[in-house]
Amino acid sequence: MTTHTHDTAPTQFVEANGVRFAYRRFGKTGGVPIVMNIHFRGTMDHWDPLITDGLAQQREVILFDNAGVGGSSGETPATMAGMATNAVAFIRALGISKTDVLGYSIGGKVAQEIAVQAPDLVRKLILVGTGPRGADTAASKSAEIFSATYDPPEHLWIAAHFLPNANGRAAGLAYLERKHRRQDRVPEVSETSAAAQLRAIAVSNEKTEGVWDYLATIRIPVLVIDGSNDLIIPTINGFTLQQHLPNAQLIIYPDSSHAPFYQYPELFLAHAALFLDA
Amino acid sequence: MTTHTHDTAPTQFVEANGVRFAYRRFGKTGGVPIVMNIHFRGTMDHWDPLITDGLAQQREVILFDNAGVGGSSGETPATMAGMATNAVAFIRALGISKTDVLGYSIGGKVAQEIAVQAPDLVRKLILVGTGPRGADTAASKSAEIFSATYDPPEHLWIAAHFLPNANGRAAGLAYLERKHRRQDRVPEVSETSAAAQLRAIAVSNEKTEGVWDYLATIRIPVLVIDGSNDLIIPTINGFTLQQHLPNAQLIIYPDSSHAPFYQYPELFLAHAALFLDA
Repeated sequence: MTTHTHDTAPTQFVEANGVRFAYRRFGKTGGVPIVMNIHFRGTMDHWDPLITDGLAQQREVILFDNAGVGGSSGETPATMAGMATNAVAFIRALGISKTDVLGYSIGGKVAQEIAVQAPDLVRKLILVGTGPRGADTAASKSAEIFSATYDPPEHLWIAAHFLPNANGRAAGLAYLERKHRRQDRVPEVSETSAAAQLRAIAVSNEKTEGVWDYLATIRIPVLVIDGSNDLIIPTINGFTLQQHLPNAQLIIYPDSSHAPFYQYPELFLAHAALFLDA
Repeated sequence: MTTHTHDTAPTQFVEANGVRFAYRRFGKTGGVPIVMNIHFRGTMDHWDPLITDGLAQQREVILFDNAGVGGSSGETPATMAGMATNAVAFIRALGISKTDVLGYSIGGKVAQEIAVQAPDLVRKLILVGTGPRGADTAASKSAEIFSATYDPPEHLWIAAHFLPNANGRAAGLAYLERKHRRQDRVPEVSETSAAAQLRAIAVSNEKTEGVWDYLATIRIPVLVIDGSNDLIIPTINGFTLQQHLPNAQLIIYPDSSHAPFYQYPELFLAHAALFLDA
């Protein structure tokens, strides 16, 4: 059997909930897999191969494009719950009855909703650079970062993921080099889908009384990972998640913004393995 | 050569700064040792042997009683800086020019002051269940916990270290059993020394303008460890430390109070090794 990697895993398709989902799977089979939920404007091709291949050493990694994103058909819902419903349908369509789930940024918000909607399906949750419903975004630089222009355009992802300092820039350039290695890619996120994602973010961040109460219902083990200075979803939201989830570990890395796991890949992989294999 | 452990390491003595310091050292020699700073009313005998022996697998562990505490002579200073000056004198008297430092609770406050006073001496810092100068103690239950009576009296340490729930009580009883294994112990902390420690805590917690500025001067790598619900030094102080130290990683463990490392010894030892050996 061929051992596939992030760069070589073929794109496959499965139908569920009226959507033709594009996905890739690779890594060590036979245990609990991990399903990866990507960020705003992200597709399967946006993951850092160091992270996905690193996780794949010990478990099967499943990347997918949610409805209306990248290589998948359908319409992107304008709510996190809607995206989670599609994600659950996709996971079940693969015949999986128990999985770990990782979510990054809005993928972390979707991951929480997956755990809420399908508590039987999810064993453990890793939430990176994200926040709860009703997140505190007062200090977020997201609007500025995503509305600025970059030359070359993909340097948006250096600004979105890393701190504007020497370490952040070096980590960002190295990440982009790894990201661009794969030749067979899916289309980028359309403006229509990005607009739906933005509406979902706005709805999710509404602050209503008891908005954090749902966190008490997520009783599985959760690992929350944050950068010291998350410019997109401020770091305090990781602390809020830890304080309101019944069984959450929080790790904050120094000198990092929205993508601490891309900046400290080896340390993150060691921490994730300790958490997932406990 | 005999391999000593927490339970068997003989108590030794060294003179420095007019104090006869009691100490014990054991573990793997040849690398950077780790000097352990204990909590309020604590002596060398209060450390959890699972932690000290676990650290000793990979490095030399040095336990000591600071001035006026346990087996050491002298007077306990009424400031953290005074305790740190004695600690630095003790470390240098052992001929050590570079060391890691772990501090728990007020030991963590002393450890910070050691790093401030002797930046050349300290390689890395681990701070457990502690806070910065000007700590936020509004939600602390410390006064209630330390003024209550316990039967048997040593159950104070279950209340001081663990959450008042089933997991906390079980972890607390297991800790006490491990702690009591050692036969050759030093005297408990005197009321005079405890009073000086309380004065030092009160002074340290004064909130003055710019009270956290000193944290920017501690430029070495720091690992901050906190329980999700620290009843003695509230958990928010760990977040404050992380946010104001230039190079700090924060890990918060679920379902734990002041002694998360005694409750999750294996996970803590793995996290500490990743940090110290990086």
